[in-house]
Amino acid sequence: MDPCKRFILLITVFFTVALFWSGYLFAIEENKGINISAETQACIACHSTYTPGIVEDWLTSRHAKTTPEQAFKLPILQRRISAEDIPDNLKKNPIGCYECHGLNPQAHKDNFDHFGFRINVVVSPNDCKTCHPVEVSQFSGSKKAYAIRNLMDNPVYHTLVDSIDGITRVEKGKLIQDKPSDKTLHETCLGCHGTKIGVKGMKKVSTELGEIEVPALTNWPNQGVGRENPDGSRGACTACHPRHSFSIEIARKPYTCGQCHLEPDVPAYNVYKESKHGNIYESKHREWNFGNVPWVVGKDFKSPTCATCHNSLLVSPDGNVIAERTHDFGSRLWVRLFGLIYSHPQPKSGDTTIIKNAEGLPLPTTFLGEPASEYLIDKMEQERRLTGMKAICNSCHSTDWIDGHFEKLSSTIKETDAMTLAATKLIIEAWDKGIADRTNPFDEAIEKLWIKQWLFYSNSIRYASAMTGAPDYTAFKLGWWELSDNLQRMRDMIDIKYDLLMDKSGGRKRLK
Amino acid sequence: MDPCKRFILLITVFFTVALFWSGYLFAIEENKGINISAETQACIACHSTYTPGIVEDWLTSRHAKTTPEQAFKLPILQRRISAEDIPDNLKKNPIGCYECHGLNPQAHKDNFDHFGFRINVVVSPNDCKTCHPVEVSQFSGSKKAYAIRNLMDNPVYHTLVDSIDGITRVEKGKLIQDKPSDKTLHETCLGCHGTKIGVKGMKKVSTELGEIEVPALTNWPNQGVGRENPDGSRGACTACHPRHSFSIEIARKPYTCGQCHLEPDVPAYNVYKESKHGNIYESKHREWNFGNVPWVVGKDFKSPTCATCHNSLLVSPDGNVIAERTHDFGSRLWVRLFGLIYSHPQPKSGDTTIIKNAEGLPLPTTFLGEPASEYLIDKMEQERRLTGMKAICNSCHSTDWIDGHFEKLSSTIKETDAMTLAATKLIIEAWDKGIADRTNPFDEAIEKLWIKQWLFYSNSIRYASAMTGAPDYTAFKLGWWELSDNLQRMRDMIDIKYDLLMDKSGGRKRLK
Amino acid sequence: MDPCKRFILLITVFFTVALFWSGYLFAIEENKGINISAETQACIACHSTYTPGIVEDWLTSRHAKTTPEQAFKLPILQRRISAEDIPDNLKKNPIGCYECHGLNPQAHKDNFDHFGFRINVVVSPNDCKTCHPVEVSQFSGSKKAYAIRNLMDNPVYHTLVDSIDGITRVEKGKLIQDKPSDKTLHETCLGCHGTKIGVKGMKKVSTELGEIEVPALTNWPNQGVGRENPDGSRGACTACHPRHSFSIEIARKPYTCGQCHLEPDVPAYNVYKESKHGNIYESKHREWNFGNVPWVVGKDFKSPTCATCHNSLLVSPDGNVIAERTHDFGSRLWVRLFGLIYSHPQPKSGDTTIIKNAEGLPLPTTFLGEPASEYLIDKMEQERRLTGMKAICNSCHSTDWIDGHFEKLSSTIKETDAMTLAATKLIIEAWDKGIADRTNPFDEAIEKLWIKQWLFYSNSIRYASAMTGAPDYTAFKLGWWELSDNLQRMRDMIDIKYDLLMDKSGGRKRLK
Repeated sequence: MDPCKRFILLITVFFTVALFWSGYLFAIEENKGINISAETQACIACHSTYTPGIVEDWLTSRHAKTTPEQAFKLPILQRRISAEDIPDNLKKNPIGCYECHGLNPQAHKDNFDHFGFRINVVVSPNDCKTCHPVEVSQFSGSKKAYAIRNLMDNPVYHTLVDSIDGITRVEKGKLIQDKPSDKTLHETCLGCHGTKIGVKGMKKVSTELGEIEVPALTNWPNQGVGRENPDGSRGACTACHPRHSFSIEIARKPYTCGQCHLEPDVPAYNVYKESKHGNIYESKHREWNFGNVPWVVGKDFKSPTCATCHNSLLVSPDGNVIAERTHDFGSRLWVRLFGLIYSHPQPKSGDTTIIKNAEGLPLPTTFLGEPASEYLIDKMEQERRLTGMKAICNSCHSTDWIDGHFEKLSSTIKETDAMTLAATKLIIEAWDKGIADRTNPFDEAIEKLWIKQWLFYSNSIRYASAMTGAPDYTAFKLGWWELSDNLQRMRDMIDIKYDLLMDKSGGRKRLK
Repeated sequence: MDPCKRFILLITVFFTVALFWSGYLFAIEENKGINISAETQACIACHSTYTPGIVEDWLTSRHAKTTPEQAFKLPILQRRISAEDIPDNLKKNPIGCYECHGLNPQAHKDNFDHFGFRINVVVSPNDCKTCHPVEVSQFSGSKKAYAIRNLMDNPVYHTLVDSIDGITRVEKGKLIQDKPSDKTLHETCLGCHGTKIGVKGMKKVSTELGEIEVPALTNWPNQGVGRENPDGSRGACTACHPRHSFSIEIARKPYTCGQCHLEPDVPAYNVYKESKHGNIYESKHREWNFGNVPWVVGKDFKSPTCATCHNSLLVSPDGNVIAERTHDFGSRLWVRLFGLIYSHPQPKSGDTTIIKNAEGLPLPTTFLGEPASEYLIDKMEQERRLTGMKAICNSCHSTDWIDGHFEKLSSTIKETDAMTLAATKLIIEAWDKGIADRTNPFDEAIEKLWIKQWLFYSNSIRYASAMTGAPDYTAFKLGWWELSDNLQRMRDMIDIKYDLLMDKSGGRKRLK
Repeated sequence: MDPCKRFILLITVFFTVALFWSGYLFAIEENKGINISAETQACIACHSTYTPGIVEDWLTSRHAKTTPEQAFKLPILQRRISAEDIPDNLKKNPIGCYECHGLNPQAHKDNFDHFGFRINVVVSPNDCKTCHPVEVSQFSGSKKAYAIRNLMDNPVYHTLVDSIDGITRVEKGKLIQDKPSDKTLHETCLGCHGTKIGVKGMKKVSTELGEIEVPALTNWPNQGVGRENPDGSRGACTACHPRHSFSIEIARKPYTCGQCHLEPDVPAYNVYKESKHGNIYESKHREWNFGNVPWVVGKDFKSPTCATCHNSLLVSPDGNVIAERTHDFGSRLWVRLFGLIYSHPQPKSGDTTIIKNAEGLPLPTTFLGEPASEYLIDKMEQERRLTGMKAICNSCHSTDWIDGHFEKLSSTIKETDAMTLAATKLIIEAWDKGIADRTNPFDEAIEKLWIKQWLFYSNSIRYASAMTGAPDYTAFKLGWWELSDNLQRMRDMIDIKYDLLMDKSGGRKRLK
């Protein structure tokens, strides 16, 4: 669009929205002494007409209602801003559209001229870091920040992904599986893990305002937690603080974690809902305060959510810090319960592709369960983290109660790993007998049973044990019922297929 | 009951409830200027004792708190009454028991004398039409209004129903399946699709008031959305506006749609809960306004529910209409994602029994996926509807974001149809090899696997794609995991059964 | 810890918490005229620092806000205290820590000296009975009070438990199943049924206060509803009135029941959520009163929860009692829908181990479905209970509606039992043909299919029928779809295994 046309358009827009816009100013006036920047006012002038939901969402946010200058005046424990200082030009206005979408333009391949303003489509952790450097720094070392690489740059896991998401054709009765499409990867695994957002020049899109030019992003839209952004940074804060309310309340409620940590492979949220903690949460949370910082145990809430145990800054009613805030969500955990064949101590690095087990594979244990200890946290660190977690439990439970709880969890970890080992022995038998092909360990029906043993059933039981009081996920639903039955199903399948193989090859006769 | 006894009974009832009734009048008095009709007062006099929950429910309704006369005074966008005019005798009273249960007595086979009043047991869309003709007219052309016929008068689908719901006996080791009973149909498929309510004369029931005569209804009670009523009309408004509060709030919340649109065959609600929209809804909806008409995007709600995208009247905060209200729930949709073997453009008529595909069957595609285009909306109409839906998304999302989203959906539709086609080819192989019998394509174990491929797995993935951000239903839970594994299971089952068949028949030797 | 050290510790603690404690007193002051006992004040003085969440929880409870003396002054229907009188020393203080944890010390093997006070770790129904004798007495005769014995002292059921929870090893290709560990039993079946809490002397635990001595409890912590306590009593009131708020609101909400009554074996809560009752509950319950006693139909709530139909004291808006309160949760039920092979009339005694069927087994029916009528309630008692339940339905539904509903349920019970019988005939065939071993009827893959037929599928359909309007659980999800398909799967498995057996043994040749 040439500058002249754009000018006319802008003038028109300004007048048509003027009356309505005054309503917005009125709404904002509630927040005394808050002056929205001129740039953000320009954004809102159009977007209150063209995407009004975004503007309304932002108006409810803390970003719209306070300024960094005000935020810096709060006592340290109450602050949501972790920077020690920020550029002067950002201090006096509320954090509006332009304050975020206009940051670090030189770093953003997705920066473009939008009606006279240099705008980034994607706001990234590197931008949020301006005010929230501690959070971004913690997050950047976490497994979540490496969520794409940990899945797609690990050849073992990549093979699993391909075996699930690849399109299968039937040719002359044979199943032929092609590589998954980008779009399917994008909305399956990478829906949670995040996509790599690329920029392929500019393109025209036709909008209510007429045709406009925008960056041609690939693998977009996506809010996966490990997203790789056009400025080279990793992560999507919006995965948990969604859209333009940037709400801490939403992030602290279990629905947010539950979008990805879900049955059947990661049933954290399902187990939570069934647990006593979840029961109390569902019955009573309407009376609680999900916005307070720091979060006061017993006052603001009476039962934990995911955020309580895994990342929030917690204090007791008398103001003692029970747990420091962290955005490295694994950092309070000593053991890794899910996602891999056997449980194991948490990895030292968030980047798990660097692990090498005794078999040379980038996995934290060998095929038979031996841990790659060099890459995993040691006993002392495990103990330190367990002690920290127990301090949180201690807010409401006695020491003896807590000890009893974690002894059960330890026992469950051992037993479920043993049940996985039994399945591993059967799959080896299947390979040895020529019933299945070990080249790709993930693509045949019997191999899928083996995967279920650890990825669905053992995982579920361990989650249910960790959040004691969800007996359904330990028993009938993805629990011991399945764990035992699955071994029988594997045994039967091996026996039937082996019998038929022997029959065909005349092998039985030879065996006799 | 003879008139004399009835008179004594009524007098007694009136006096026993008099004191209590005054409490109700007090409650109603809040609604100044509202005069309940004499007939409805008589209903309440008894029913506040005999079914008090109904009366209390009604007291909370808008029907109890306003009159049509008042409703007509509202600006057109705010009106919930769509009639241009209604009979004078209905204008001045709130809409109470008798105003609905006393309508059109001549049309109702279920009309009966109830303590001196002519009452219909079932209030039907034809009755509601008195005040809400636009809604009833839209609904009557929709697939929902033909929900019984589309299932039970389609011989292919009727066979599927019989194969699922029929009682199976074991006779001499053989499984013999009988036709399903009416009662089982009633509480399985027809629980959602609706039953045909018949009237077989009168019968006596013994109540707290003694024995009374009422119409002997068959297949009752039922609130399936496509119910066929004793007055010949089709539909049950109460399916979504339940009981006597007739609540728009309930209809706009996702739990209502979720009663029928549910895992595993129609996992719309399950997917919604896992999506970002659902996450925001669950975290924040207590602060929203579900009763406002028109429904203001960004003000009344910050994240859509089912009703937002599929049927509500939406306006922007500055009052522009974003989407007109519709009670034809398919009318905003261009593609039909679920319920049939392959996805396809939406049918032109709500009555899908009129469709004939190239194979002469009443299905929107052939067995191999060719659409019966003559009966389906054309490209232009598809485009028109897609554009309308995008306008809703545009309330909160940029054009480019929306385009990216729907491109993913298109790709997913193609890929899941391809995965269904692969399963179809396998089932054909099974039939050709004599392992399964094609006479009834729905009643054998391997055929059930084929059904799962489209009815459970492909459906789920498409729903998850359409409501982006529910990666679990695309991946492990009823998603690509199952889609791929199911083909392996079908392949294995064919191979095992064929080997055994060859063995028995000596065929293998011959094949060698 | 020696007395001297303890004294110094206590003094220190008292001073460090003094300032903070004044805040608590201020909070409590709201409750005018309430004087916390000196003992409980001492408890709170430490525990407000060491387990502040418990103290805060208690502060929200009715126990903290009222005294028995005040409670006795309420009209009988409004009372939550069922004792006619209680010891004088308990009357004037709110019910705090010491009032419960200090009761009946001589009966408690878990009583110990805790900083100078004799404290029980576990508060049991026998302690609660001091004020709530009617509730405890009702509960004590219920199946819930015998939940451990009914499962673990019934050899048939114990075998099922062992077959699910036992650790399986693979030795020379064979699956060898060991007995389950106590810890796994504890967090699977006994998570709901309850554990037997033992006391093995004392042990030291290290706390923030230093090392202290506490009773060494076994199988602890556990809040299973049938828990056997260190004072010999049975039950855990906290299973439903959790932690220190003892909330009636939580107990009346469906999440509580849903912790144990859950898919796939007891999908009561899942079905409820899908039903119209559940839909209205989820949409509207924020406006209802879950704390009122008695509970007023139509005023306090507009749709029932589990508690409404199964145990709460219900009155109509004009104060008539619709249903008396009961804590024998089976006492309103005439038929037992779940948990056993066939449905049957409710057992007379809560202790079901005393039942002997015609085959001499402690089961309410024989293997082919004949009821052990002597141990089950008779027709007249069934009718009495059904009539009582219908009176509750009558609060909102007409008599004819209710009759129609329960006729459907009766039909469903018969049909699902018939579908179970078909599966039983197939499993007998499998045993007779030598494909499976009848010694343990629960441990082979085909036997697991048989179990699913009754424990998962028939159960689910019956629940869905009983709470009409959850068509998904009758149809595709654990419903008739599975019931029919499962018979096919069993038929196929028998045929395949039998063919292979014949092949191996040369039997086919002989059969020819």
